[in-house]
Amino acid sequence: EIVDAIAVRLADGSLRGRHALVTSGPTHEPIDPVRYIANRSSGTQGTAIAEALRDLGADVSFVTGPAATPPPAGVRVIRVETARQMQDAVTGALPADAAIFAAAVADWRVSQAADRKMKKGADGLPQLDLAENPDILAGVAQMRQGRPPLVIGFAAETDNVIENATAKRMRKGCDWIVANDVSPETGIMGGTENAVTLIAENSVETWPRATKSQVARKLARRIADHLGRGDD
Amino acid sequence: EIVDAIAVRLADGSLRGRHALVTSGPTHEPIDPVRYIANRSSGTQGTAIAEALRDLGADVSFVTGPAATPPPAGVRVIRVETARQMQDAVTGALPADAAIFAAAVADWRVSQAADRKMKKGADGLPQLDLAENPDILAGVAQMRQGRPPLVIGFAAETDNVIENATAKRMRKGCDWIVANDVSPETGIMGGTENAVTLIAENSVETWPRATKSQVARKLARRIADHLGRGDD
Repeated sequence: EIVDAIAVRLADGSLRGRHALVTSGPTHEPIDPVRYIANRSSGTQGTAIAEALRDLGADVSFVTGPAATPPPAGVRVIRVETARQMQDAVTGALPADAAIFAAAVADWRVSQAADRKMKKGADGLPQLDLAENPDILAGVAQMRQGRPPLVIGFAAETDNVIENATAKRMRKGCDWIVANDVSPETGIMGGTENAVTLIAENSVETWPRATKSQVARKLARRIADHLGRGDD
Repeated sequence: EIVDAIAVRLADGSLRGRHALVTSGPTHEPIDPVRYIANRSSGTQGTAIAEALRDLGADVSFVTGPAATPPPAGVRVIRVETARQMQDAVTGALPADAAIFAAAVADWRVSQAADRKMKKGADGLPQLDLAENPDILAGVAQMRQGRPPLVIGFAAETDNVIENATAKRMRKGCDWIVANDVSPETGIMGGTENAVTLIAENSVETWPRATKSQVARKLARRIADHLGRGDD
């Protein structure tokens, strides 16, 4: 704790003048006016990252889905519900020096959300036809102009975590992937702790399990170091 | 407020020795370990009803899905996630003098929830095959033995509210239906106010829009009056 406090003190201001974009929380994809598809992201890790970047002096834009965790103070909060709204908010918040995509964005939406509440009826079970949502991370990571110098994705996996996350980094074109195992037995999704592996172009680094705040501070310091080196 | 306080004082204890079962909140139906189907019920109305029944002296069993509103103090709380778990909890909590089904139970679940996180892959869009959930309200309302003397359902509608709710009362076999319009523009789902119509066998009564607490106290007094008359 003391070491952490000293580290924060030393690093303080290292992101001053930098703009960081953080997405956080789940997205909700409507089925009809009352039903929706959701996911178990609480927004805790994304919120902690925004706080940690703010504490290093960054100007933070925080694009959040409907999360249980309230957004941090001292950041610009943009609230959205669906993946498409999140994409619009991200586009609107650029340019940025670093973009951290911690939100658990729904891969799919219901292609035709109903205007009226769907009813159990004589026509049996309704069909949920899905459509693919925009890939917000890949879209930003592969920008030809105005790409943030550091683009960080997250990979919430339930099996073959490092293998899946490494493949995801390549596929998306982002610089780093923060990978974790969200199998229910880990208690990570919705919990207070996280156990992550940071995957970069030439490194795979597994961090010890820690509170989400500690993981966030470590990641924020890495971001500050990276941008400070100016090696991108 | 003063009139309300006097009414509560006068009625205090009128449900002493009675057992009321209240369901509340949404259910979540898993798609895979991280995704689920949800609905916009906040649990506010169900929680207020449990409080109002408690304040009249009832012994309350409160079966709640994952709701944003915390459960009230002084009641027996049984937490569930899915419709099937709610059904088991309701069965386990009977017998009761009154059963109030305020939960927004999912009509459908995903028939085969995946053990692993579903991935975007070469096989294109996943199919969500739905299965019908148990009808908890109808199950209790149509019990041949041990049916609670007063069974109350809720009908959250977005169109033809009274017509749909009246048909629902007949179809389910419950005594009363509390109907409301949950179209997004009413602000009722997730909001602090409610505008309900109480539908009984021979009456349709539209109550003025009021806070969910006021609606709950009015309903609790009606329940107390009904059970006190012993006319069932």
